[in-house]
Formats: sequence, structure tokens, C-alpha cells
Amino acid sequence: MSGVDLDPYGERYAARTRGMTASAIRALFAVANRPEVVSLAGGMPYIEALPLEAVSDMVAAMVRDHGPAALQYGSGQGLPALREMICEVMSLEGIAASPDDVVVTVGSQQALDLVTRIFCDPGDVVVAEAPSYVGALSTFASYQAQVVHVPMDEAGLVPAALDETCARLAREGRTVKFLYTVPNFHNPAGVSLSVPRRDEVLAVAARHGVLVLEDNPYGLLGFDAEPVHALRARTGDGVIYLGSFSKTFAPGLRVGWVLAPHSVREKLVLAAEASVLCPPNFTQMVVADYLRTQPWQQQVKVYREVYRERRDAILDAMAQHFPAGSTWTRPAGGFYTWVTLPEGLDAGAMLPRAVQGRVAYVPGGAFYADGSGGSKMRLSYCYPPPDRIREGVRRLAAVIDEELEVRATFGPAAGTSGDAAVTAPAPPDLA
Amino acid sequence: MSGVDLDPYGERYAARTRGMTASAIRALFAVANRPEVVSLAGGMPYIEALPLEAVSDMVAAMVRDHGPAALQYGSGQGLPALREMICEVMSLEGIAASPDDVVVTVGSQQALDLVTRIFCDPGDVVVAEAPSYVGALSTFASYQAQVVHVPMDEAGLVPAALDETCARLAREGRTVKFLYTVPNFHNPAGVSLSVPRRDEVLAVAARHGVLVLEDNPYGLLGFDAEPVHALRARTGDGVIYLGSFSKTFAPGLRVGWVLAPHSVREKLVLAAEASVLCPPNFTQMVVADYLRTQPWQQQVKVYREVYRERRDAILDAMAQHFPAGSTWTRPAGGFYTWVTLPEGLDAGAMLPRAVQGRVAYVPGGAFYADGSGGSKMRLSYCYPPPDRIREGVRRLAAVIDEELEVRATFGPAAGTSGDAAVTAPAPPDLA
Repeated sequence: MSGVDLDPYGERYAARTRGMTASAIRALFAVANRPEVVSLAGGMPYIEALPLEAVSDMVAAMVRDHGPAALQYGSGQGLPALREMICEVMSLEGIAASPDDVVVTVGSQQALDLVTRIFCDPGDVVVAEAPSYVGALSTFASYQAQVVHVPMDEAGLVPAALDETCARLAREGRTVKFLYTVPNFHNPAGVSLSVPRRDEVLAVAARHGVLVLEDNPYGLLGFDAEPVHALRARTGDGVIYLGSFSKTFAPGLRVGWVLAPHSVREKLVLAAEASVLCPPNFTQMVVADYLRTQPWQQQVKVYREVYRERRDAILDAMAQHFPAGSTWTRPAGGFYTWVTLPEGLDAGAMLPRAVQGRVAYVPGGAFYADGSGGSKMRLSYCYPPPDRIREGVRRLAAVIDEELEVRATFGPAAGTSGDAAVTAPAPPDLA
Repeated sequence: MSGVDLDPYGERYAARTRGMTASAIRALFAVANRPEVVSLAGGMPYIEALPLEAVSDMVAAMVRDHGPAALQYGSGQGLPALREMICEVMSLEGIAASPDDVVVTVGSQQALDLVTRIFCDPGDVVVAEAPSYVGALSTFASYQAQVVHVPMDEAGLVPAALDETCARLAREGRTVKFLYTVPNFHNPAGVSLSVPRRDEVLAVAARHGVLVLEDNPYGLLGFDAEPVHALRARTGDGVIYLGSFSKTFAPGLRVGWVLAPHSVREKLVLAAEASVLCPPNFTQMVVADYLRTQPWQQQVKVYREVYRERRDAILDAMAQHFPAGSTWTRPAGGFYTWVTLPEGLDAGAMLPRAVQGRVAYVPGGAFYADGSGGSKMRLSYCYPPPDRIREGVRRLAAVIDEELEVRATFGPAAGTSGDAAVTAPAPPDLA
């Protein structure tokens, strides 16, 4: 961290601040905002696809007719009417739940924060996919939890590897607080947990007494098929489920939720109250009115078509332009494809040259807590239109080609670990 | 906590959950919602005084004209345009600050959470007024910080007592992370820190090397005079300032802020990103548009007149109805008066009888971390109209009279510590 030596408060911070380092997401928002850069970095939904006139009228009516409620303090658990609708949304993925076990949060990021807060003491282990969502890794690090990664393949998390990892951690006497998993259209890996593996993962977790934290922001954004049943739909027990309206409606409202076993839910509400007192009534009522008065499932279909077209564009362009030795995942939904660069290239070290070449991505190292992922990158196809995506991939391919050429001429570049500034923190004993 | 023994996850929670207990605020929102009860409990602003038609039109225009920004992800630090306006708002209390040192938060409760998160390790001491805002005590407890109270009088925090407390804690080798203070129209005490004492408090804090956390939600709501200069206006150094739009505009948007020295601000942004990724663009843009397009300072005057009339009503009614031996503070602004019951009465034990008598308040014990405050109660005059306030005070006086009568007949009631369910947690070594 720059300036730490000059910080007059340097001695006074809590120990947990040592796990708080600048996130790749923040740095990349700045890059993505420069208009000449094609950003394949940020996971921003294509909000422009929303019917803004209708939303405008709806919000005006809400303030006019229910302003005193929308503008007032609310309940720490969230509005009962919204929690009921959330249960209807979850039923689309096979979940039967009571509104009483739902807590509305300020985006599902706050749900991640609250779950980690109530479960993780410093040094506790969170088992997570390799790679994992960078925002979750930041949260785990900020509570001094240690992440142990478990491999994935094209069918998602590998149950046998999870079993081995849990057994090893138990032998080592380390306390595993939960398994963090994104089963649908994984961020960043772009793969989904296959149906047969869903029950296997639950069985392994149950055998080791490990809670499952199921993070499912993209579940309704599959391109080819109906949503599959969530892990939480397969068992009422031992699963904490996180949902979000950021991808099915809009992230600027910051409305997410957590569904938890009842006793856990009680603790989450207390933690939420200490954290923000209550989520905004205003944004909760916008979401509730949107679900109630707008054809929201039709809008999800519109989003799916937008993203399917962009997924096709990025896959086609990569096939056309990327050099031999590059590989990538073929997402069936969601926002991301996960690229492995030709051997010897480092996505972190390459990023400054890519930005110079007017294209941005997130280097893979950001998605690992253990310093790996150097040859990987996450490409997002959710926000730019298809022709911009194709242009971005062309530019990126040219940068990769140049890297390969430099490498062929001069051998491996010095300083390939130049991605330190954008990687999530690696707990020292997991290096 | 009820049900702890039956909680299948009981063994797995983090140590910090032991400091998370049900807050008085939550329990009392439920009570306040029953229409037959006059609630003098909750600190809800009188939102009905807002020009809802104008706000409705303004929000509609915002979504129509800037929907893609309002509904999209934003920056972890908050919108630059809003941070600039926040600096203008703070200038009304003499503060000169850069937008770069402001972090927008989900209400100032989140600012409290983030400041505590970056400074407090378990066992660290927070020095705070006796009494203190219950939501702050909950936050400190949730990070396992220990609160040491310093007395107040009619002129606010007593500087000599602060000096003695800091000296004693230093001798005992205890680490004080900051002084938490509400200098204007204190919640719950209803007093303000006098102007001469402001520099004294800053001098004492500086001498002991203690940061000051200045929480100022009510500063613009004085009834009789112009706002006085904030502590932060008197020094650029060693003060972290918290502000809020919950009382000058509306709490349902949950928009607050923290102004911090630059190096602290960097840590706060990292903590905010791990906590909620970013505050809602939508509510930030509502506030920014409100400040830009509406006569907001005129509206603050409207609020002041509403609250002044209600303050007069509660003071008159208490003088008329409360029995001898009751005393109370005479607030010159804000929402609260702080009542001391006649000797021997316990506000916590009396609450169920008060609710039966169709009036609610917050028992004083909620505002102390050390188990004291039994003879105190907080009365809020912000929300009910004057005639309801007078009726509520009449009902409350009848309950107090009856308590005095029972006490005169039977002696001190058994179980006067019946307020355990609504007090903030008391760290065992401060009892």
C-alpha cells in the first residue's frame, strides 16, 4: 500500500486492516470509464435494456402514493412484502422458503459480509472454488479468514477434490466454517455445477459437517435451458443461499438477500442492524413495485437474449483471433468467460500493455487467494455491444501476439509477477 | 438469547456474535407500529412534512434522464458530485474539506461500522458519553470493543472527566481507539457541548493521543440559534466526522457520510467495498438532485419549526403532569429529552406497564454499556403531533404515579433489573 509509512494513524488500525488491500474491481472501474478503452473487465449489467420510461412512472407513483413509508426508517430484516416476493423468485429455482427466514441486504455483497461476520474468527478456513469471486475473497480477507481453494472443471466444483480437501483440513485440525460456491454461470470461471454433482457436493459437505454458502446472482440468466434446482432446493439444511436483483433488474439499487436457517437468520439480523440499522426502504419498495407491476420475467428474457448474443460474439471472436495455445470456457449463461493464455504468458504483467492497446480485462490472480492464476484472465461480455466486443477481442489478440513475439525473441519477461497490485491478498501460510 | 441451546449452529459462530444482542431499537419499532400506542420511543423524522409531489417529479426525471447511471454499479467511495455537495453542507458548520476525503455510506450507521472495523481489535476501548447512542453501542459491541463512559452535564461531555478517564486507562495499559461523541442535541441526552468546552475536549483528546469520532446527525436542527462550529471545524487533525441526510431529508434513503483524514479515508473505502461493494447510486442521485433542485435549507427550517413546536409540547406536558422528583433535559434542538424518574423507579421494569397504558419510550439502560441508567428514559418528540405528545405524557405520568403508589405500599419492586432484554451488552469487566 502506498503511503503506509507516512500514515500518522498507522499504528492504530485494527489487525484486520492488514487483510484489506485495493481490489481489482475498483481499479478497473476507473479504466473501464475511459471511452476509448473496450472494457471486458467490469461485470456491469446492460441497464440500457430496461424500460426506463415505465420505471420512471412507477417510481414517481411510489413516492407520490407511499412516500412517507419509502422515505422512513424500516426494519433491519427488510420489508415483509418484498421478502414474500423474494420467496416467489426463489421458487423459480425450486426453493421452498418462508419470508421469515429471508434477510434483505444492501446487495448480496452485504450478505457475504454478514455471513462472514457471524461465522469467521481470524484464522478460520473458508473453502472456495479455484478461482472465486474477487469480492468474496476481499470480504473473507477483511475478517482474516483463510481461503483454501478446491479445483473446478467444466462441470464445476470437483466433489472428490472437495472431499480430500475437507479431510486434509480436518487432519490438520483447521476449522472450516463454510464452503463458498457459485454453482451457476460461475464468476469468473463461466462454468456451472452439473446436476449430478449438486447432490454429491451436498453429501460431501454434510459428511464433513461443513455449511454451504450458495451465491447465485446469475441463476436465471441461462441461455439454453430452464433454471436448474439450486443447492438450497435440494436440502433445507446446511445451506445459506444468497440472491440478488443486481443482474435480473438493476445493481444501482443494491438489493440482495440471504436465506438462512432460522437460528442463523436471527444472528444475521442483529449483525445487519449493527452494520446499517436497516436497508433502504426506498430501494426495497422500488424492487417490490417492479416485481409487482412490471413484466419482470419477460425483462429477464430480454436480458438473456442480449447476453446470449454477446456471448456468441466473444466466443466467435476468440476462435477467430486468439493464438494457438489459448483456451477458454464456453458459458451457458451469465457474464463471463475464463481464458487461459498460451504457456509462459502472465495476464497481470500484460495488463498495462493491454490498456495501452485500448482493451481491459481482469487478470486471473485477482480470483485466487493463494497467488496462482497468473496465466488466466476473466473476460466479461455483458456490457459492450457485440461489435465492440469483437473489436476488443481483436485488440486483445494483438497484445497477446505481441507478448508471444517478445517472449520468442527475448525469453520469459522479467517481473512476470507484476500483478501484485490487483491480486487478492494471499494469507502467508497458504502461499 | 432465546433458543441458543437449540441452535444447531451454536458451536460455529464467531466469537464476536457474543456481543450481538437484540437491540432496543428493533423491539421498539414493533411497539411503535401499533396505532393505539403513543410512541415516544423511535427517533423517526416527521417525513410527512416533505413536499412529496415535488420529490416524486424529481425522482421521475432522474430515472428518465439518468436511469442508466442511477441503476448501475458505482464507486465504493460514493458519487463525486454528491461528495462535493456534502462539503457544501458541512461548510454550514464551519468545516472546510475536500470531496476526496469524504466517503458516502449507507446511513451514518455504516460509517460507524466502518470506522470501528478499521480501528478496533477485540478488547480495545472506545470512550463514549454516558449515555450514548444505542446503535453505536451495538456496533462497538459487535467488534468486541469495550465502552468506557464519561459523564455529561447540561453543557455536554465534561472535559475534566474525560481527562481523568484517559489518564486512568493509560495507567491501566488499555488501548483507547477513539472518543465517540454526539456534540449537538445529543441522542439520547438532549444536551449540546458548549462552545468553550469544544476546544477543551479537543485539547484533552490531543494530549492523550485519542482520535475523536464526531457524530453529528442533528447539527442543523437547532431551534434557537445558528449552527455552531463542529469539532472538525476547529481542527483538521484527529477528528473523524460523521454526517447524515436522515434528519435533514429522509432516512429511508440511507445516505450518510464520513469525513476522515486522507490515510484513514483510504482504509474506509477498502472496508466499504468489502462490506457493500458500493453504496446505491440510485439513492445517492436522489439526494444529490434534492440538494441541487429543491429548496432544502428552507425545508430544514420547516422541520425545525415542526420539532420546536413538539419540543415545547413535551416540555409543557411533563411540567404539568410528571410527579415531583422527575427531572428532564431541555433540548435546544434535535429529537430527544432525557428523563430521570423519581428515586427508586426503574424505567426498564416499568416499560411493560407503560405499553399496557398505551405509551412507549426507550428505557435508559439501552444507552449504557455498563448496566447503569435504570432510572432514566429517552422520550422522542419528533414524530407524533403535539396533541398526541401531550396525551402520551399524560398516560406516562399516570403509569409513573401508579408505580410510585405501588412502591409506597409494598416497597421496592422485585426484579427491577427487568430491562435485560433491551439493554446494550455490558462487557463483563466493566460491570
